[in-house]
Amino acid sequence: MMKLGIILDMDGVLYRGEEPLKGAREAVDFLKERGIPFVLLTNNSTKTPGSYREKLLRMGIEVSEERIVTSGLATRLYMEEHFKPGKVFVIGGEGLLEEMKGLGWGIVDVEGAKEGGWRDVEYVVVGLDPDLTYEKLKYGTLAVRNGARFIGTNPDTTYPAEEGLYPGAGAIVAALKASTGEEPIIIGKPNEPAYEVAVERLRSFGDFDEVWMVGDRLDTDIAFAKRFGMKAVMVLTGVSSLEDVEGSGTRPDVVLTGIGELPEYIEAELGEGG
Amino acid sequence: MMKLGIILDMDGVLYRGEEPLKGAREAVDFLKERGIPFVLLTNNSTKTPGSYREKLLRMGIEVSEERIVTSGLATRLYMEEHFKPGKVFVIGGEGLLEEMKGLGWGIVDVEGAKEGGWRDVEYVVVGLDPDLTYEKLKYGTLAVRNGARFIGTNPDTTYPAEEGLYPGAGAIVAALKASTGEEPIIIGKPNEPAYEVAVERLRSFGDFDEVWMVGDRLDTDIAFAKRFGMKAVMVLTGVSSLEDVEGSGTRPDVVLTGIGELPEYIEAELGEGG
Repeated sequence: MMKLGIILDMDGVLYRGEEPLKGAREAVDFLKERGIPFVLLTNNSTKTPGSYREKLLRMGIEVSEERIVTSGLATRLYMEEHFKPGKVFVIGGEGLLEEMKGLGWGIVDVEGAKEGGWRDVEYVVVGLDPDLTYEKLKYGTLAVRNGARFIGTNPDTTYPAEEGLYPGAGAIVAALKASTGEEPIIIGKPNEPAYEVAVERLRSFGDFDEVWMVGDRLDTDIAFAKRFGMKAVMVLTGVSSLEDVEGSGTRPDVVLTGIGELPEYIEAELGEGG
Repeated sequence: MMKLGIILDMDGVLYRGEEPLKGAREAVDFLKERGIPFVLLTNNSTKTPGSYREKLLRMGIEVSEERIVTSGLATRLYMEEHFKPGKVFVIGGEGLLEEMKGLGWGIVDVEGAKEGGWRDVEYVVVGLDPDLTYEKLKYGTLAVRNGARFIGTNPDTTYPAEEGLYPGAGAIVAALKASTGEEPIIIGKPNEPAYEVAVERLRSFGDFDEVWMVGDRLDTDIAFAKRFGMKAVMVLTGVSSLEDVEGSGTRPDVVLTGIGELPEYIEAELGEGG
C-alpha cells in the first residue's frame, strides 16, 4: 500500500495571523497518530523554528521543532550541504541571523563590514529584513561585486500584513539584483533547494513513496508541488481562491475547503487499513 | 549660421570627485563668453543645484544655480508641468526632499505615514536614499498599491564611490517595482522627462537650433543624446572608455579626450565668426 509523506505550509493552512483554522489541531493529531511523516514548511525567514513551535502551541497545536522548516533553516541546511565554509553577511531578520550564526562559519555584521570586513564576505544571504538600511544594501552590493555568492531565502515580493501588502524578501533581493547585476540562488518555495531540504527532513520521520504538498498559494505552494511531482493539495483558507485557480495555468490535484477535511481525504485515499 | 545649445553632464566631465578636470573652467568660461546657451544636467538627486554651484565654485568654476539641473529638480519641474497637486512621499536624499518641499504640494513623512497618512499620498518619489529604511519601502509600497503614482528620479542602478560601486536610485526603484508590480515614470537621463526639462531650461538662456549633449557615460549620456536627436559628444575622462564604445551599439558622434578640447571643437564646427 502507498506510503505517504506530507509537507504542509503554515500561514493560511494551519492558522491566519494568530487564529488557528478550523480542524488544524485535529489534522496534525491525526498525522501523528497515524505515523504519517510530515513537516511544516514556510517561506518566512524572520522567525526561528522554535518560535513557530511556540506560536502553534499557543493555538493548541503541538509539533516538535524538528518538524518545522523555515526558509532561514532551509538556507542553512542547503549551505551546509552544498557550500564550503566562509563568512556570511546577512540582510534579514532575527530568525535568519540565528540560522546563519548556527552555521558557525562566521558573521560579518554592518560594523565589521564598515571596517573593511566586506572584503572577506563569501556569502551574502538576503531575506525579509524589517531593519533594512541603505548601509546593508551597500555592503551587500560591495561583497557580491567582490565575488561573494548571492543567496535569497525566498522569492516572495510581498507578504500580507495589517495595513495591506508589505515588501517581502523578493523586493530586497530585487534591489541587490539591480545593484550587482547578479542572479541569486533562491532557497524557498517553489524552488529546488526548499524541496531538497524538506524531503530530506521528511525522511527523518519515516519512509514514504509519495509526497503531498498542502498549501494555500498557487504561485508558491501549488507551483512547488507540480514542479517536483508532489500531489498538490490546495486549501481555500488562505491567499488563493477558486477563481484564482480557474484563471491560472497552475492546477492543484485536489481542492479542500480547509485543513479540517484532510484526515477524511487521507482515509479515503489510503483506505481504512492504511 | 547654426545656433548651438549645450547640455553638459558634470561628474566625469567637469570634475571627478573633488578634482576639477583639465580645461573645465576654461570650457565653461568659453561658453559664457560666446553666449552659447548651456546647462549642466546630472542624474544625481541627493544634492541641490545650490550645493552643486558651491562645489563648482570651490574648483574655480563659476556657474549660476539656474544653469544646474539635478534629477531632483527635473522631477519637480516635470511634476509641476504634468501633474495635479497632491501629497508626496519621498524616498530619497536631502536634495530631493528640498525639491519636493519646493513643490508646495505637501509632504507625508515616515511619521505621518505611520499614523495613516500613507492613504493620502498621491506621489511616491524615489531617488538614491542614503538613509533608506525598511519602513520607507513599506509605506512607499502601501501608497503605490493604494493608487499613488510611482516616480523614480533616475535609472542608475549603481554609482561609483570610494570602495567601489554603491547601490543607486535604480536599485531602490527595483525593490518598489517588485513589491508593487508597477512600472515607475523615470525622470533622469536617458529618459524623455530629463530631455524636456533640460531643453526648456536651455531655452531660457537663448535661442538654438541644434543641441549637443556632452557626457562620459554611454548608457546614460550618449544613449540620451542619440535618443532625442542631440549631437553626442563623448569625453574619455569618466566612466566609459574607447573600448566600451567599440563593444557597444551606442555610438557617440564625436569623441574628445576631455572637456578641454570642447572650445576648439566648437570653433571648428561654428567657424571663426560663430
